[in-house]
This record gives sequence, C-alpha cells and structure tokens, in this order.
Amino acid sequence: MCRWIAYRGETVPLERYVTEPAHSLVVQSLKALESAGSTNGDGFGLGWYGEREEPGLYREVRPAWSDENLRHLCRHIQSPLFFAHVRASTGTPTTRPNCHPFAHGRWMFMHNGQIGDWALIRRNVEALIPDEFYKSRVGTTDSEAVFLAILGAGADTDPIGATMRTLATLADLVRASGTGEPLRFTAALSDGRDLYAFRYANNETANSLYYRETSGSVVVVSEPLDMERAFWKPVPPSHLIVARAGRPVALEPFPEIGQLAAE
Amino acid sequence: MCRWIAYRGETVPLERYVTEPAHSLVVQSLKALESAGSTNGDGFGLGWYGEREEPGLYREVRPAWSDENLRHLCRHIQSPLFFAHVRASTGTPTTRPNCHPFAHGRWMFMHNGQIGDWALIRRNVEALIPDEFYKSRVGTTDSEAVFLAILGAGADTDPIGATMRTLATLADLVRASGTGEPLRFTAALSDGRDLYAFRYANNETANSLYYRETSGSVVVVSEPLDMERAFWKPVPPSHLIVARAGRPVALEPFPEIGQLAAE
Amino acid sequence: MCRWIAYRGETVPLERYVTEPAHSLVVQSLKALESAGSTNGDGFGLGWYGEREEPGLYREVRPAWSDENLRHLCRHIQSPLFFAHVRASTGTPTTRPNCHPFAHGRWMFMHNGQIGDWALIRRNVEALIPDEFYKSRVGTTDSEAVFLAILGAGADTDPIGATMRTLATLADLVRASGTGEPLRFTAALSDGRDLYAFRYANNETANSLYYRETSGSVVVVSEPLDMERAFWKPVPPSHLIVARAGRPVALEPFPEIGQLAAE
Amino acid sequence: MCRWIAYRGETVPLERYVTEPAHSLVVQSLKALESAGSTNGDGFGLGWYGEREEPGLYREVRPAWSDENLRHLCRHIQSPLFFAHVRASTGTPTTRPNCHPFAHGRWMFMHNGQIGDWALIRRNVEALIPDEFYKSRVGTTDSEAVFLAILGAGADTDPIGATMRTLATLADLVRASGTGEPLRFTAALSDGRDLYAFRYANNETANSLYYRETSGSVVVVSEPLDMERAFWKPVPPSHLIVARAGRPVALEPFPEIGQLAAE
Repeated sequence: MCRWIAYRGETVPLERYVTEPAHSLVVQSLKALESAGSTNGDGFGLGWYGEREEPGLYREVRPAWSDENLRHLCRHIQSPLFFAHVRASTGTPTTRPNCHPFAHGRWMFMHNGQIGDWALIRRNVEALIPDEFYKSRVGTTDSEAVFLAILGAGADTDPIGATMRTLATLADLVRASGTGEPLRFTAALSDGRDLYAFRYANNETANSLYYRETSGSVVVVSEPLDMERAFWKPVPPSHLIVARAGRPVALEPFPEIGQLAAE
Repeated sequence: MCRWIAYRGETVPLERYVTEPAHSLVVQSLKALESAGSTNGDGFGLGWYGEREEPGLYREVRPAWSDENLRHLCRHIQSPLFFAHVRASTGTPTTRPNCHPFAHGRWMFMHNGQIGDWALIRRNVEALIPDEFYKSRVGTTDSEAVFLAILGAGADTDPIGATMRTLATLADLVRASGTGEPLRFTAALSDGRDLYAFRYANNETANSLYYRETSGSVVVVSEPLDMERAFWKPVPPSHLIVARAGRPVALEPFPEIGQLAAE
Repeated sequence: MCRWIAYRGETVPLERYVTEPAHSLVVQSLKALESAGSTNGDGFGLGWYGEREEPGLYREVRPAWSDENLRHLCRHIQSPLFFAHVRASTGTPTTRPNCHPFAHGRWMFMHNGQIGDWALIRRNVEALIPDEFYKSRVGTTDSEAVFLAILGAGADTDPIGATMRTLATLADLVRASGTGEPLRFTAALSDGRDLYAFRYANNETANSLYYRETSGSVVVVSEPLDMERAFWKPVPPSHLIVARAGRPVALEPFPEIGQLAAE
Repeated sequence: MCRWIAYRGETVPLERYVTEPAHSLVVQSLKALESAGSTNGDGFGLGWYGEREEPGLYREVRPAWSDENLRHLCRHIQSPLFFAHVRASTGTPTTRPNCHPFAHGRWMFMHNGQIGDWALIRRNVEALIPDEFYKSRVGTTDSEAVFLAILGAGADTDPIGATMRTLATLADLVRASGTGEPLRFTAALSDGRDLYAFRYANNETANSLYYRETSGSVVVVSEPLDMERAFWKPVPPSHLIVARAGRPVALEPFPEIGQLAAE
C-alpha cells in the first residue's frame, strides 16, 4: 500500500518530517494505521531538491526502520522541496529501481496505489511511454511506467493536464482489461519548483491523503504524522493539491478527467 | 523478539515448516502473534545439516517475507535437522553475521531473548569466550557471544551441562550489573545429531516455546505454525526438549541451574 | 562481460566447479583472464536441478568473492545439472532480477554477451515475448528478454530451433537498428534433462567458450577453471554443445541460422 | 588494502573528488594502481561535516562503482571537510558497520592497513578501549577498534598525541604477539575542524599516501586522482599532515613514537 510524504516550503532538515514526528514516516514503515497492510518494509526512498536542477535520490531495499544511512541523511540533508516514501510491494520485486521516488531530469514522482491488474495491462501502459522516456525505465513497477507516461503526455508544459490525460487513459485501459481490480492513484509530482499531489480512484476506495499548512510550508502525507488531527486536512477524492512557488497552497477538484475519460 | 523453528526427524524439504504452513515462520516475520513486537523484519537465517558434518547456512539482512532466495532454498533443500529464524533486533545492527543461526564446526545455535542490558555486561560475557572460540566471533550480538560461551563451557562433551553453567553465569552477571532488564533465553542447539531446545527467564516472562511430535519427528517453535492448537504443547519455563538420534523426544526440567546459580 | 559455467553429469557438490578450482568462477569474479573487463562484481547467481521439475535459484547483488552464503550453498547443495554466473553489467542496474541464471517453469538460461545497442532495440525484443511469458519478466536485462523470446519461439518442443530462430531475428533487429554494436550470444539453456550451450557473434569477436568432458560429465565454461589447458576444448563460433541425458556430448555447428537470417 | 581520500577546504560538492576525476576514488574501487589487490569492492563509505557538530555517514556493502546512491549523494552533498573510502577486506565480513569511515560524536576516522595478525591481538586491542567508547563498537574490524582506542587515549584534547600513544602500544602488541605480519597504519582523523592524516608502518612497506594543496584546500589520498603527478606530493613514512582551520597545511615528522615505544 505504501506511505509517503511530500514537503514544500522553508528549507528544513529532512528529519523534521521523515524521522522525528511521533508517527513519522519511519514509524509508519513498521506500523501504518490507515492502510490495509500495516507494514511498509519493501524498500524506501528519499528524493530532494537542492543546488542542482535535478533531484538527489537515495533508495534502498531494506526497511526504513533499521537503515542507519537513512537516519544520517535525514539529519544532514536540508531541502525546501523533498519526497520520502516507504514501500509495500503489490507484487513487483524489492529492488532499488522499483523504489520510489522516481526521477527523470528535473521531474520527480512517487505513488501509492495500484493500476488495476498490472499483469493484464502492463504492455499497454508501457506502450504509452514515448521512446525518449522508455530509455529511463530501469525498474518494472506500474508506478514508474505511469510516471514516464505522464512525462510523455506533456508534463513539461502542463503537468496537471498531462496527469489528467494519463489517468483518463489508465482508467480506460483498466476498464477494457476486464479486471475487477481498481485504479488507485495517490501521487506526488514536482519539477523542483512546484509541487502537485493527486488523490484518485475509479471506485469508492481512494487511498488516504492529508495535508497541513504552516507559515509558507505545506506537508502532504498518506496519514497524519502526529495526533494533532485537527491540523491535518483530508484531500477529498478527485482533488489535487497545488503548491506553486510564491503562491498560496490550493486544494482543487480535478479539472477534466470526466470529459477526457469520455472521449 | 525474534521467532524461530527447529526440526529433527524424517528428511523433509524445509518449505514444509518454513514457508508452507498457514502461520509459517515467514508469515510470522510479517506478523507474529505471541511476541511484543509483531514484526520480525531485521534479517533471517536458515541452517541445515546434510552430507557434511558442519551445517549449511543462509543468512540475509532483508526481511524473510520478500526474499525470493529463501523461497527457492526452502523448496529445494531437504534435511533431517534444520533451524530457521526471523529476527527482531534488540539494538545490534542488521548485518548477516548478526543473523541467526550461528555455526561453529558441527555446532549450530539460535536464540530468542535478551541478556539483561547488553551494553552493561557485554565485556563480561565476551570474556567468557575462550580464545580458540573468540576467533569465530564475526558479529556483535549477545546471542553469538552466548553461543561461543556455551561451546567454551564444554558443549562438545556435555551440551546440556555447558548450557546450564553458562546460564547460571549469565544470571549472575545480569544481577551484578544492577540492571532491571531480564535474562531471557529461548534457544536451540544441535551438533547435527541431537537437538536441544531451552526455555528460561530469570523472571516470570520467559519467551513462548511450543513443540509438536509426529511419528518420529519433532518441531520446536516460538509459536504454533497453524490453528491446530491442540497438537502444540507448551514447553514450561526452565524446561528443555531433548531430541536425541534414535531416542524418544523428552521434555525435561532444567537439571541444575538452581544449584549452580547459588554457588 | 560476465563469466559462467554449466555442468551436466554425475551428481556433485557445486563447490567442485564454482569455488574449489584454482581459477574457479569465484576467482574469475575478482579477476577474469579472457574478458575485456576483468572484474565480474555486479552480482551473481546459482541455478540447480534436484528433486523438483523446476530449478532452484540463488541470486544476489553482492560480488561472489565475498558472499558467505554462496560458499555455504556450493558446499551443501549437490546436483547433476547446474549453472553458475558472475555478472559484469553492460548498463542495466545491479538487482537480483537482473542476475543470471533466469528460470521459467523447468527452463533455465544464462548469457554472456550483448544484443547490439540495447536502448535502441529493447522495445522490439520485448515485443518478441508472447504475453504468457511477458508476465515473467521481472527484470530489465537484454538477457532475460532474449530467454523469454526463446521460450516464446517454441523451446518446449525444439530448443535448438527456437534459439536459432530467435538469434536470426535478433541479428536482423540489430542490423536494422543501425548500430555498430555487435550481437554477441554465449549462452546456456536447459530443461532439467538436457543441456545446450551456444557460442555466436555477428562479427569476429564471439565471447570465449570452452568445454571439458570426463567420464559421463561435461563442464562448459567461459574460461578454463585451471591451468590444464589441454583438457579444455574451445567451442568454435556458431557452434553449440548438446549434452542430452544418456547420450554422448556433441559439438555441432549451428544448423540453420544462415538460412533463417536470409529469409 | 583499501583506498581513501580526505578533503579540507572550500565547501565543494563531494563529486569533485569522489566521482569526477580521471582516477577518482570510484575508479580506484574497480582498479587501484598502487595497492596489492587492485579491486576495492568490499563496501565503501562517505562521511562529511555540515551544519551539525557530528558528521553524516553513508556506508554500504556493495561496490562503489555500481552504487547509484553514491553518485547521487556525491553530486548533491557539499562539504568543507569530508572523507571517502573504498574497502578491500583483510578478513572481516563485508557489513555496513565494518565499512569506513567510523564516527563517534564529532570525531571521524578511516584507515588503510593492518594491525599485525588481528586474530592474535584482537582481544588486547579491544581491551585498550575504555567502557564509555566500547558501547560504540558496532562492527568487528581492527580499524574501528583502533579508532575507539585513539579516542580513549585522549583524542579530544590531544589528537596527535593520542594517535602516537596508540600506535606505540599497537607496535608493542604486534611485536609481543610473535607474528611476522606488519603494523601498517595510513589513516585520517578529524573533529570537524581540523584534519590529520598519518602514514606509518613498523617495517619498510608503509601504504602509499599523497596530498595536494590548492588555494586554501588540501586533498589527502591513497593514490593520485589524476595523471598530474607533479602536483601530488608523497607523505613520507612516519609523517603526518596537519590541516588546521585557518592555518597553513603542514607536513610534519611523527613527534614521539620512538620514545613512547621505548617506554
């Protein structure tokens, strides 16, 4: 099921959100509260923006809770925009390239969900990826394929539209495959400047997503990092968070997936 | 807290006990029922006797539940006497040499428990290990040190006595260290012929231990492998299982720890 | 460049060929003599047939030379038909699913070589894999794709023919891609009964391959395991070794790739 | 034999010395030129000082040459004082706690060499470590033991003297053990402010050490990072580099080991 957090705001050490809170992401790796499988021990990853255009990545197959390197990096790396993810595999192997987040150029992406019955539609989803991005497919997950499909759909100029169009196509592919398995997509996307977080499912069971704003910063999370539930606002299904540089954080309904899906 | 199984009997594929049962050891790695921490994801190990005098070992830092190699080995290796262990660290790092079982010559050992406050008595326990065995200390766990101390106490000629003497010394060391942390020792030991399993604590909270006999075979486990609870008999505290080659399985009270501890 | 060995014959412990010889495969992992890059430290694997129809596998991302598990398994596992492989990556990540050998049902395969410029023809090679086998693609290497393509080309009924047809298609794809990179294919294939080993390149630089027969056994290797060079016969390019159960080992020229390639 | 680099000077990305040079440390992991074993593939580590008093660490058991995380971290972490090390084990297992550098509080240390026959004198060296530092012994290497012994000998107030006294004691222990194996110690030590690098052996075969100064910066290396040999000055045996904050880099003879050893 996976758990993740995305942060945009003041430059802070990653530990503030990844390892220090009472119900931090590392605690969730051992015992998550709002997901079907409570253990997220099939690898993890950090991705952060700093001096470079492209993000830095640290991904590892061991569980987050026992990784000394993770504790060191969270304490010593500071960033104004970062992702962290603990993985519960839905079937693909536990390898570094299958761990989130994924990066391509300045873009970074992570995901919690499933794309119908992956074995049924994998080839069709991979076919959505243009050749120039297929070269970057180093793993075998549905999530990485969806990321590259979104980039191929034009994320560089219209990240929200590219995501909507890709979701519409995925919904069609899942439906056409005849599976009873849902399309669930709770994901974060960034180009190093702006942060987008999406919550969607093609049924009633979208994976949980919350956010919390403080002066100039926003944290988007699979589940709240502490017991101060009042500060954590749920993101409704088919809504997205948009946190653009120098602009207030916005919670918005999905713009167009209905229409596109009907095309 | 760790979970383990030890088997002695007909030659069987390891999968029969490690991966196939409804509540197999691999299932317990993700969700144990009778231990404080329910996840045992800090490495695991297999040890088995076959054609050689010394046992074969496979130990790995990844969780047992996602390890493809473990599934393969359990399906393809057969043995009349084997150990399997899933680890929940009490503080020492997740490295292969810190994973159970441990082997030295023909002897093999694994453990679930704790030796008081390890930081307080580590040097004293390591001092129990004779030089000839200290060379074999490749990890940093309390369990490996206790194993080598037992070998040093004369396991080759009197395995039960050597274990009793070591336990008595450990109880003294823990008491003298002034800690409130208990000595808990639920362990299995074998020389490739005979199997011994011990349950002990210096307080009321000995870690759970069960065994099940079938025609000519015995399985000793931290917790039952299935819901047929009637077939699994608990081992009382300060008791041991003795399964000698060609002899009936015996459940016996500890022979002498009381006297030794009082010396 | 990779180094490998394949064995068919009397049941022997794997150590006889993998770890014990003066220039064993494990020695070659640190210092190979007949390959461009002398270090083969990007993972390794063992595959062996035993009681089951399908082979057992042990694959790991660490170098073979320091892997304690490998030494244990080679000492304790016996088999009449096994593969071992040390990997030098040509670009794909060092993950377990990218390590050789690969298995599917009763079939096992390993490879040393390259398939032109993989980034250029990857999609075309993956398109050769029928859906029923594409589900088994858990890694991202060219070698695994070629194995599944060979199975899709009918290995079950005609393994040599299926390999020849696949090689012909690969040669066409490489040529059509416009690359100057060669197709090099030095590979072993088995169904658990018979062993096939192939040496081919579409230029003058086929990767080395040798074999050695002793009473009823054959070892096929990337480079000789010892200094007794007289016992190791080279396999000429476009030749294959056929070691069928109960039949003498045969060295044969490729039957039909010329014609097929010309179709 | 290990290879390492230590840097003190302007804040730079780690990649400038670890991954970018023609004969960078990562290149040396695959093929070192001035050491007995040319492959340094038994793990590696980075340690760097930044905003915190204590250093950050990233240590991993895989070879440096294939580690994607290492490339990312070297590109995205900047530091005015950092260590990097690629390991060739002299016998202790390949685990993260056995990889260099080692850290304790604000102190960091790494080593290339050997301490006589470690199996013979291990207990005596471990006995040099005061209890308060023994708690930090999480691995089993000679190098970590020597580091903790140096801290126990008073590094906090007199790092050079503490190192000299420890070396003198080690030389005595090695001599008394009766081994023919040398004491070789080519090491770097820092408290986050000042950098010390030592070259010593109790015979004629001290491991190589070089340094290069540029405006306000110094790099100390096991072997030069490029072909501009003229810029790399060798450190003679029984000499040390002292690079104190705000002071010129000094190459000095060992102050007192002769006298101390004779006490």
